[in-house]
This record gives sequence, structure tokens and C-alpha cells, in this order.
Amino acid sequence: MDGAELTGKKVLITGASGFTGRHAVTYFQGAGADVVAVVRRPDVYSFGKNVDVYVCDLNNKEQVRELIQEIEPDYVLHLAGKNSVPDSWADPLLVLETNVMAVLYLLDALRICPKARTVIVGSRLKYTPEPGRIPQPPHPYSLSKALEEMVSLSWKSLFGQQIMLAEPGNLIGAGPSTGICSLLARHVVACEQTGKTEAFRLSGRDNTRDFLDVRDAVRAYATLLVHGTSGTVYPVVSGVERSLGEIADLLMSMTEAKVPIRWDGTSSGPDGAGKQEEMSELRKLGWQPQITFEASLRDILSDVRTQQGRTTG
Amino acid sequence: MDGAELTGKKVLITGASGFTGRHAVTYFQGAGADVVAVVRRPDVYSFGKNVDVYVCDLNNKEQVRELIQEIEPDYVLHLAGKNSVPDSWADPLLVLETNVMAVLYLLDALRICPKARTVIVGSRLKYTPEPGRIPQPPHPYSLSKALEEMVSLSWKSLFGQQIMLAEPGNLIGAGPSTGICSLLARHVVACEQTGKTEAFRLSGRDNTRDFLDVRDAVRAYATLLVHGTSGTVYPVVSGVERSLGEIADLLMSMTEAKVPIRWDGTSSGPDGAGKQEEMSELRKLGWQPQITFEASLRDILSDVRTQQGRTTG
Repeated sequence: MDGAELTGKKVLITGASGFTGRHAVTYFQGAGADVVAVVRRPDVYSFGKNVDVYVCDLNNKEQVRELIQEIEPDYVLHLAGKNSVPDSWADPLLVLETNVMAVLYLLDALRICPKARTVIVGSRLKYTPEPGRIPQPPHPYSLSKALEEMVSLSWKSLFGQQIMLAEPGNLIGAGPSTGICSLLARHVVACEQTGKTEAFRLSGRDNTRDFLDVRDAVRAYATLLVHGTSGTVYPVVSGVERSLGEIADLLMSMTEAKVPIRWDGTSSGPDGAGKQEEMSELRKLGWQPQITFEASLRDILSDVRTQQGRTTG
Repeated sequence: MDGAELTGKKVLITGASGFTGRHAVTYFQGAGADVVAVVRRPDVYSFGKNVDVYVCDLNNKEQVRELIQEIEPDYVLHLAGKNSVPDSWADPLLVLETNVMAVLYLLDALRICPKARTVIVGSRLKYTPEPGRIPQPPHPYSLSKALEEMVSLSWKSLFGQQIMLAEPGNLIGAGPSTGICSLLARHVVACEQTGKTEAFRLSGRDNTRDFLDVRDAVRAYATLLVHGTSGTVYPVVSGVERSLGEIADLLMSMTEAKVPIRWDGTSSGPDGAGKQEEMSELRKLGWQPQITFEASLRDILSDVRTQQGRTTG
């Protein structure tokens, strides 16, 4: 997909001021789309001049209805949600209201736009029920994402809407990410700028995860918006497992500073996010990752250096 | 169970002014429980003098929290909910808010009462997802009851609460039921009192369903509150399939009036609600139906005659 299909299309992006949202706004604007960035609070992030920012509390049914009636979007990328496992223990109701009811409010409001195509961004941490057994989600967050998927796909069945589910693995990139690559990059830059010597604690060097650049993920969402099959769940992963040791070594190779790390040796298997075959459906639609892992890490470092420079300078 | 276990216990009943709720209040009061009847609107039904009526909008998280903090119940029988399939098409969001979020508000509030035991009354119309296939609930109501079960059992797993699920079949009895037995009884009484000659339309004489007297169902709920195993789904059925022809014949035998019925001959299989083996778990706890089908029909007729007499007299 070269993005030409998006020119002049009205693309509504929820959670626009979040980590992925900022990259999504940039991408869709670049593709010539007419972007509406939906945020809960207008003061979190400054978008460029040409971005149409719309303030809406997605937990408020009437506000969501007004939003859709006013915008009548061609495409909807739903990124908003509560994504913290610890927060889901602290306030389980808020997580379920936000990740389940807000999605329902959005999809229900979209019934007035039968041609609109929507991508709901789920999570690979969602709980998968086992038939005949009592549900045992490990935390309220995993339950909320299971219900989000179920209501989204049910709304497609009940009302014939165009709804695709995207399930990203570990997204990395510049911006407010709390993923391991960003945390480690911040440690590197702290060592560079302040000579910090406290060690960063990591588990085992051999522990692996699938990482995907957030910009590749955004292109995957765009591909799904235009070409995805309604009612389908698409894993959005790189298909390559990287070890924590590899990440640390790569970041070390990008700095002159001494960066202390303490490995506690805890071994965990791969998180299973990145199986090559899981990418096949997205590849069939013409998508593939374009940004190398090294380039992603370099961009994260560069972004952190700029941000930290601003804070400390 | 003889009900002695309930003496002096604080039993909170939601949906208390509904069809089952009224019978539940009567039963638990008779068993010496300290009943709190929770209703959304106080003007729907007049409870007896000794009933403690509490007005609460269960869709309001704060009100639910206050209710539980104030009452600190030993037992909770959750009967409230939206139970109409057509209404679920008219306002799907309301059905999901009421049948899913209200249950969550209740169960979450009950975390301050770790010893409380709760029965959630589900529905045999709930949608059962098939693994690996996109969810296709036949209507929003069936989706709402599937989610209700999932969140209830998940809350048990996540927070260690004592939560039983009851799944009644077709409950019959005196009061504001919209089931086939009550509708037909109202037709019989209309023929008795006004000489109405318009025919009541029914499908096929051979179509069968499982019916259970609502008072037997209430005793089943009481049994589950005291003796049920947390995290278990209990069918609440009679285990006997009755044909529409049998119901019509029985009601005819209880009246002198000429009662015209038009059979359209549509054949449907049994609704599958009443399999003997499904009662086994409840029977193991000591429960069994006590009221004969004939007695149920007679009580319904008698109640309708009194009500209609009041209206027309």
C-alpha cells in the first residue's frame, strides 16, 4: 500500500495524543488524509497546525455520538484505551468501562456511517477463554481486551459493520513509550548526560521478545483500514524474536558512555508474540516491516537525547 | 434446604419489583431473612410493611457502592436486568450497560464484603462462542448475557469472591410475566369475563418447552446462595418438556368459557432447556421442584382472575 488510497479521506484517530497516536497522526497526514485527532485532554500534546483536534470523553455515550455525527468519518483508528496491567488492578472498573464500553459507544455510534471502516487496536495480552472451563484471566486488563474483541466482532455480526481487529506485539519508537527499549535508551542517555552509574536491572540476556517499529505498525493499521477483511483479527508483529542481550549490546554500540546493567539471570521463554506465520495475513495485503531494528533503536536514542537535552538544558 | 439457614441473614435482592423479584422477597421473608428489596423506581410495586425497600440505579457506580457499604449483605440475589430480546435491538447499549456493567459495579462493590455470597441470574439464551470462529450472537441480549457470565466468573477468579451463576429456563407463575402460560391464561380470563371471541394465535401443538414454577426457581436460588459452589453455572429447570397443546388443554379444563385458539402449525423442536441431567448439580444440593405444572397453571389463572376482576370490576 502506498497510502494513495487515503488521500482526501476523513480519518478519525482516537487516543491521538498517545505513543502510537502521535505517529498515526503524522503518517495519515503525510498520506494526504483529512485527519481528526480525538483526545480526552487538549493539553497533553501539541499537534501541528494543520491537525484538526477534537476533545471527547469516549466514556461519555452522548459525546461519542456527537463526535461521529459531526465528523462522519471514512476510516476510524481506535487507539484509545487503558493499557496498564498494574492500573487495571488498581481500578478494574475504569479499565472495563474504557476498554469495553467506550468501544461499544464508538461502534454503536458508527452505525449511522455504514460505509465507515474501523480498526480496533487490541492486545496480545488478551485473555482467551478455554471452552468448558471457568474464565481465569490473569488480570482485569486481559479480561477487558478479551471483551473488547468479543463486542467488536459481535457488533460486526449483529449490525454488518466493517470492523477489523489489530493485535500489536511490543511496539517501539520515539515518544512516550514505557517499553523496555525506551526505558533502556533513557538509561543510556542518563549515563551520557549525567554520568549516572546506578545499574539498570534486567532479567536474562537470552530472554526474547518480538519488537516492531511503531511506524510499521501504523502502516499495518492503514493497510487494514483500506484492505482488511471485516471480522478478522490480525496480529501485527515483526516475526523476529530479539534477546534482551542483543538490545543492550546494540544500544551500547551507539554510545560512548559507560552504561552499567545488572542481569538477574531470570529466564523466561519467548513471549510468543512473533511467529512468522502470524504475519502472513497482513503480508497478503501487501504489508511488511520496513524499518530495521537497529534503525528503530537509533531513532529512540536520538529522540531521548533531544528530550533529555530539553529537560536538563 | 428448609430455609432455616436464612434466618436473620441479610439478603439483598435486586430487581425486587420484577416478576421473580416479588416471589423472592416473599420467600426470603418467610424464611426469616432480613430482606433488602432493591428497586430502581419505588412506585412500581407495593411491598409489605416489613420489607426494607432501597432505591438504587444499578447503572450508577457510586449509588451501587453506597448501597453495599450501607447494607453489607450476607447474601445477594441479582435479578435486575433487561430481559427483552426486541428491546435489545432497539437499544443495544442500554442492555449491555445494564446486564454487564451493572453486574460489574455490584460485584466490584462487594469486594468489601469478602464473606458475601452472590447468585447472578443469567439466561439460557446467552450466546456461547465457538472457539476459532467470529462471534455471531443472534441478538444483543444474548451477547449481554454471555458477557455477564464471563465477567461474573472472572471476578470470582480475580478477586476470590463467592459467585454462583443460575440459568433459569421458562419460569411461570402469578405476577407480571410475559411468558406463554401467562399470556394464554389472560386470554382465558378475557374470554370468561368479556366473552371475547378473537382467537389466540399459537404455533404448533407439539412444540415443547421446559417450564418451572417461579417459586421453585426462587428456592433453587436460595439453595445456591447457601450451598452453591462458587464459579459454577447451574441450570434451573424442571427437566420436563411440556407441549403447547398440553398447556392449552389444561387451561381449557380449568374454565367453563369457550376459548378460541388458532394453531398455525409451525413446528419447532424442543428449546433444549429441560434436560434431566442438567438438574443433577442442583439436586445434589437437595433441591427439587415441588409445585406441579397443573398447580402452577391454576395459580396463574387464579391470579389473573383476581387482577382482571380488579381492572374490570
